[in-house]
This record gives sequence, C-alpha cells and structure tokens, in this order.
Amino acid sequence: MLTKLFSPRSIAIIGVSSRSVRFGGSSFLARLLEARFAGAVYPIHPKSEEIQGIKAYPDLTSLPEIPDLAIVSLAAVQVPAVLESCGRIGVQRVHILSSGFSETGTTEGRALERQIAGIAEHYQLQVVGPNCMGPYCPGTRLTAYGVSPGLIGRLGIISQSGGLTQRLTEYAASLNVGVSKAISMGNGTVLDVCDYLEFMANDDETDLIALYLEQVRDSRRFLTQVSAITPIKPIILLKAGRSEAGARTVGSHTGAMAGNRQIWEAVSRQTRLVTVRSLDEWMDTIMAFYHLPPLLTNGVFIASAGGGMSAINSDLCTDAGLSIPPLTQQTRVALTDIVSAVGSIVGNPLDSFDAVFHPQLLFRVIDQILPDPNIGLVMVDQLVPRGIYHLTDQQDRTAEIVRQIRSRPSAKPIVFSVDGEGCNQELTQQAIRVRRTLCDAGIPAFPSLERSARALGHVYRYYHRQTP
Amino acid sequence: MLTKLFSPRSIAIIGVSSRSVRFGGSSFLARLLEARFAGAVYPIHPKSEEIQGIKAYPDLTSLPEIPDLAIVSLAAVQVPAVLESCGRIGVQRVHILSSGFSETGTTEGRALERQIAGIAEHYQLQVVGPNCMGPYCPGTRLTAYGVSPGLIGRLGIISQSGGLTQRLTEYAASLNVGVSKAISMGNGTVLDVCDYLEFMANDDETDLIALYLEQVRDSRRFLTQVSAITPIKPIILLKAGRSEAGARTVGSHTGAMAGNRQIWEAVSRQTRLVTVRSLDEWMDTIMAFYHLPPLLTNGVFIASAGGGMSAINSDLCTDAGLSIPPLTQQTRVALTDIVSAVGSIVGNPLDSFDAVFHPQLLFRVIDQILPDPNIGLVMVDQLVPRGIYHLTDQQDRTAEIVRQIRSRPSAKPIVFSVDGEGCNQELTQQAIRVRRTLCDAGIPAFPSLERSARALGHVYRYYHRQTP
Repeated sequence: MLTKLFSPRSIAIIGVSSRSVRFGGSSFLARLLEARFAGAVYPIHPKSEEIQGIKAYPDLTSLPEIPDLAIVSLAAVQVPAVLESCGRIGVQRVHILSSGFSETGTTEGRALERQIAGIAEHYQLQVVGPNCMGPYCPGTRLTAYGVSPGLIGRLGIISQSGGLTQRLTEYAASLNVGVSKAISMGNGTVLDVCDYLEFMANDDETDLIALYLEQVRDSRRFLTQVSAITPIKPIILLKAGRSEAGARTVGSHTGAMAGNRQIWEAVSRQTRLVTVRSLDEWMDTIMAFYHLPPLLTNGVFIASAGGGMSAINSDLCTDAGLSIPPLTQQTRVALTDIVSAVGSIVGNPLDSFDAVFHPQLLFRVIDQILPDPNIGLVMVDQLVPRGIYHLTDQQDRTAEIVRQIRSRPSAKPIVFSVDGEGCNQELTQQAIRVRRTLCDAGIPAFPSLERSARALGHVYRYYHRQTP
Repeated sequence: MLTKLFSPRSIAIIGVSSRSVRFGGSSFLARLLEARFAGAVYPIHPKSEEIQGIKAYPDLTSLPEIPDLAIVSLAAVQVPAVLESCGRIGVQRVHILSSGFSETGTTEGRALERQIAGIAEHYQLQVVGPNCMGPYCPGTRLTAYGVSPGLIGRLGIISQSGGLTQRLTEYAASLNVGVSKAISMGNGTVLDVCDYLEFMANDDETDLIALYLEQVRDSRRFLTQVSAITPIKPIILLKAGRSEAGARTVGSHTGAMAGNRQIWEAVSRQTRLVTVRSLDEWMDTIMAFYHLPPLLTNGVFIASAGGGMSAINSDLCTDAGLSIPPLTQQTRVALTDIVSAVGSIVGNPLDSFDAVFHPQLLFRVIDQILPDPNIGLVMVDQLVPRGIYHLTDQQDRTAEIVRQIRSRPSAKPIVFSVDGEGCNQELTQQAIRVRRTLCDAGIPAFPSLERSARALGHVYRYYHRQTP
C-alpha cells in the first residue's frame, strides 16, 4: 500500500528557496535533480517561474497533474494549510520535512501536530513525518538524502532519525550492502513504525530490516508484528533512550517518551529481534546478516598471526557468545603437515603468520577444518602485510583470497577482520582496500575481530533462539 | 638496573644468516642498521667476514669489546651453549629471540628452558626471553622491531607478546603517543614481569605503563607492586586467557598457565589497575590517559549533530559509566542565544549541526558549559563535513579547533570522536586527517563516540576508585 511512496512518478516540492540552495526544499530539489530522479519534479514558488533550471509553479492547483508525492518544507505554522490543499486536490502522499511540532515540547507545536493528524484522517492522506527526511529508494533514484547514487539491495531501513538513516545508507553502500527502501519517519504522527514494518514485511525486495527506534506508540501491535516478521526477515534494532539521559534527548527529538522498559524486555524475550547499541554495531550486524547463510553452530575456527593476538581473539569470541572448540587430534596432525609448528601454534586458534599472509596455505588449512562438525564458522584475523612484521614480500593477496573462497562453495561462512590501526594513512588505506575487495565479493570484512565477533554472536543467537 | 638493556652501547647478534634477510638475527640486524642504531653492531657468523655491509666476527671471543647486549637467534638446542659463552666472557645482558622452549609443551623444550635458567643464575645474567622480541627504545634507536623510527614519549610497554608490542608501538605512534621503553618478555624465564614493572616504576621517562599479560608467576609480588605503582603511574592491562579457549592458547604461546581467576579478581579489586579486553580498547585507553589531566567528575557535556545520534551517544556514555547532567536553566537560556533551536536540541547532549561544523560557534557553547561544576569533560562527536549532509560549505576547520583549544587552557578535558564509516576511502581519509591533526596537538580523537566513552569511563574510574 505504501509502494508509491517509494516510486512516485511525480513529486511537488513546497517550500523551495528561489535564491540559494540550503537545507530544506531547495536542497531536496537539488539532490533529486542531481540523482536524475526518473519522474517529474515540480518546485512550487509563489513568484519564481524557474528554479534550479526547471519550471516552477505558483501553487499546487496550477500543476499539470496531481503529483504522486508532495514534499513540504515550510515553517510549521504553514503546514496545516498546505496539507489541507493537498487533500482537496487529491494528492495522496505527503512528506512533511518541516520540524517545529510536538518535538519542541510547546503547546503550539503539539496543537499543530494534532491539526495534521486531523487533516490526514479527513482526507485519508498518507503523511510521512513531520520532522523527518522521508522516503529513500535507490531503485527509483529517490535519493534526495542519504548516499547518492544509492546502492540497490535487499536491506530495508525504518528510522526515527533522518541523520542515522543517511549515515546508514552511506556506511552500508561502502560495504556493498544495498538498500531496497528506507524511511525516515520523524514524529510518526500518521504513518507510524508499525505501518512501515507491515510494508517492509510484505515487500519482496526486502530481506532484512534495520530499525532505529526511540519509541513505539502501539506496543501490542508492535510486539505481534515483530513476532511474526523476525522468523522470516531478521530485524536489527538500534534502540535509543535506554538511559535516562538518552530518554531525555528522545523526548526533545521526536517528542517521544522513550517508554516502558517492560515493553522492550518483552519484545526482546519473546521475539527474535536483534538489538544493538551503536551505529558501528548496527552496521556490522547488518553486514553479517546480509552476506551470510545461517550459522549451524557457534563453533568458530580462528586463524590469526601472533600468539598474543590469538589468545585475545579467543577471549573476545567467547565474550561474544561464540565457542572455540579444540581441534581433533586428527585435524591437528593434518595441520602440522601444512603449517610449520615453530613460531606458530597449531590448534584453534591457529597462530601462523605464514597462513595469514599466504591464501593458498590458508585455504589448505581451511579445507581441513570445514568438515569438522564442531566448527560452524571460520574467522580470519587478516593482517595488512607490512615492514613492521619483518616481511620483505608485502604483496596484497586479497584477490587470491576471493578466488579461493569462490572456488569453495561452503555452507559454513568464512569472515575476515582487517585492522587499520589508528591514524596511519597508508596502513589504513591498505586495510580499507582489502576490506572493500572482500565486501565487494560478498565476504564480510570487519575492521577488527572484536567487532566481527560481536556481530557474529548476534547472527548465531538469532538462528538458535528458543522463543516461547 | 635494567637501564643498559634499553641503551646498550654495543650489540652482538648471534644467528645471522649471511645470505638472505629473513625473520630472526638477519632481520634484526637489518632493522638496527636501517634505524641507524647509535652503538656498535657485531654480527657473529662462523664463516662470513661481512654481512649486510658490516664486518662480521666468527665468535664472541673475537669481538673488539665485550658487548653490552647479545641477541641470540639460533635453534633452541644451541642456545644454552651460547649463553654459557656469554657468561664466561662477561656479556651481562642476553636477549633470546629463539622459540622452541617450554611453550612447545615438550619435555625437551622444558628441559632447555631449565638449562637457561641455571646458566643465567650461575653467571648472574640478565636474560630476556626466550621466545620474544626483546627490548625496544626509540630514544636510543634500538628499534629492531616495532615502528621505526620510533616516537619518543612517556609510555612504557611490558608485554608477553612480541606481536602485540610491535602493533602497539605502531598504533600509538600514529596517535602521537610516544614510547619511553618497551619490552617483549616472552617466557620470562629469568627476567619476569615483576622485574620489568619495578624498572618502569622507577624510570623517570615513563609516566604510564601498558601491560600485556598471559600469566604472572609471583602473584604476591605482582599484587604488591601493582598496588604501589598504580596510584602514581596508571597501568593499563590487556589480560589474555580470560576464557577457557584463551587460556589454552596462552599455554601454547608462552608456556603459561593463564592462572587463577582469584588472583586477577584480587588485583582488580584491591588496586587501581585498569583492565581492558582488546587491542583497540587498550590503545584508546592509553591515549586518553596519555593526553588528559585527571577527570574531576564523570559528568560529560556531549555535542553531536542529529537528534538520533545524540540520544544514542547519551546511552553509550551512560553504559560506559559517565553521566550526562541536564543543563541548568541559566545555561540553557545562554545556549539558546548562541544556537538556533529549530532543527537542533539545546540541552545536554547538544544536537546542533551548526555547532559541530563551526568551531567558533562550538567554543562559544563550550565557554558557557565549562564553568558548570557538574561537567568534568566535553565530548564532541565531530562529523566530517560532506555532501550527504546537504552542506555546500565543506571546509575542514580542524586547525581552528586546535587554535580554540589552545587559547582556552582548561582543567576540563575536551575530546573528539570522528567516524570514518566503513570502506569509503575518501571519507575515511578525511576522518583520519582530522583525527591526526587533533592527536598531533595532544587532543585525544577517537574513531567513534562509543570507543571514546569506553576509554573515558576507564579514566574516570581510575581517578575515583575507592581502594581498600
């Protein structure tokens, strides 16, 4: 039912400056034109006949057609009247970009928001917002915010923060995680999180849902929905307002009460919802779900370089809820034939500079490991080869890693972590190049094993959750 | 007493390949020469008269002087005899690079290690290792491993992992955190962690100690030392072998028993030891201690851009043990005069794109905040200006931030976080450039507010710890 919100054939923008491009109607217009949005775009301006090189119209009634979507970027006090005109002429979808409503905490703001709700109900309008960035869809080049050009993919995003939505689209694209549809929903006065969840649940282009929430109004419907959706499409929730200070911020941001801890505990306990705490954890976990098949067990085989790092990696995996099963005697013997035991530790974790720097060796090791029924996952703590390791051969062998993985279709995932370490430009660029090459091939590559383990722990618990 | 270990006037290297430079004696020699180590370097080789362009000697007795330090990189079985010769001719300090001792878990390995202990005791030798990278000191250009040229500074490093030592020196240098002395101590057969701790405690060039440990043998002495040192010099401990799998790895790495949980709990409870879990947490925490004065309270003022990010940042700070005190009515009013309330949230956290992108505005805000007795710390979640935020002005204003901080001597620290976000090369390079500029000015800059909060939580607890 919300399909057209993400694929409008025509968009009117009300509240476009005729002089400069600044945040609001004019920057949305500029970005739609820059993205070569496929449909018609109609800037509305009382006086100008042309804005940013395209024809402008004095009001909604003078447009050559009824637009599929109107974007409103006016002072809050002017919004109800515009919404009323939309309803009268038959515009069915309105994205209210303006803020200045209940999130201000003022009587006036709340009253304006109630007016919006009333008008929307009267005309049966689909209203997005207010106080938000609205719909985003790389497939239709509706990318007036967020990364542009967008990367088309299977991730749906529903968010009560426009800023987080645009950052997530950008972050995800850099890791080869594409977006089907994203919605920045703001105060959710008319269309609320449950409406968007229902839409994403039924959307064939969406396999996985990222959710940023400050509150839900209808907690019963939310719980029912999440219970029904999560067994089919994982939902990765970044929940704000867990702390007292966070709840205070949430109140000023979207006018929400961060709400009842009990609701959230019930949702977490009774459903397969995956809950995370930070932007990085959100993205890492999304990437893991996006690229990986189900995890059969939580047993991980770790390949690292260095005994200290191997020990720390074992601790970090354990902290994240993964296990590091000892190898069978038979596997140990087989590995000893492949990897020299001097200066290495043949076991799980495997500590071997040779294996980490030589993919052919690494995958001979991995071939011995994959049949082990205790192992569900391989984690390689890949190092960028560099002089500091006394290496004379510092060739980047990432392409060979990709080739090896592609030639070895396995139901057991192999993931990588590649540290960049600090503010060393050259090293960090190399690390990013390696990660990018892997991600582009659909192989999850994280910036540290700590983050890799945290994300994979979520994936494991999702697939092995006992829900009542 | 260990001073000369870090500032030897002459070094003999036993076990140098005459043909190729590969890990071991020959790579240590190559790196010492490359670093222009100030003293004399004597490669020992039975046949070659010259190695890597310098004169080689057939044995220790033919050297023109008794070297201050000998580095031994021979097969384990040959090490006791060499150690014996060192003792006989009066070499007092020996770094055994070779592995193949108790860490192999074999009877032979353990026997060889006992032999070493016996010879060392007989001749009263200072033996570092075996199975380690040995001493590192940027001040004397003793940088045969680790980052080279080294950055001279006030951080001391004691580590049971050579790999982690070299990574930490490299990581730290990239963040303008310099090293006084570092020791990779390996199996600690003779000189053990307590000896190095005693040395660093009394070393005038060391203000702060980073410790990587798998075990301690003499837990009573360790507890006494840590109790005495930590009130004066913070010790940041990365402890491996917390988990069963980690303990298993530790056993194969340095032959250690990861040991008794009770000892570690007692040390954590009774001392001001700061314990961390990962390389990144270690480095972040070290950087925070290195650059910052004591924290007076745990109250933090957060400046971010975006309401969602502000709410998440509040939650993350709370998780880390910091508090986000609401502003007084008076301060709120004062801030409202500075920052527009529309599209922003004037409070703590402050949500303002304007403030985050305009240092002059940001520091007008900070000037209102600093006198507040509830605030002990300012955290700025700095964004890299970019098109995605609909910004036309994307100037890098980091130099202005540095200027503002320098013109405002304050006992209350101001720290920054700058996200790079994923594998976007351009964005990440910009973020690193900003962080580097800040770190170079002695202003801690972290890759995310999540990591910033985690590090600052450690700093706060260190200064406000009630120890029995």
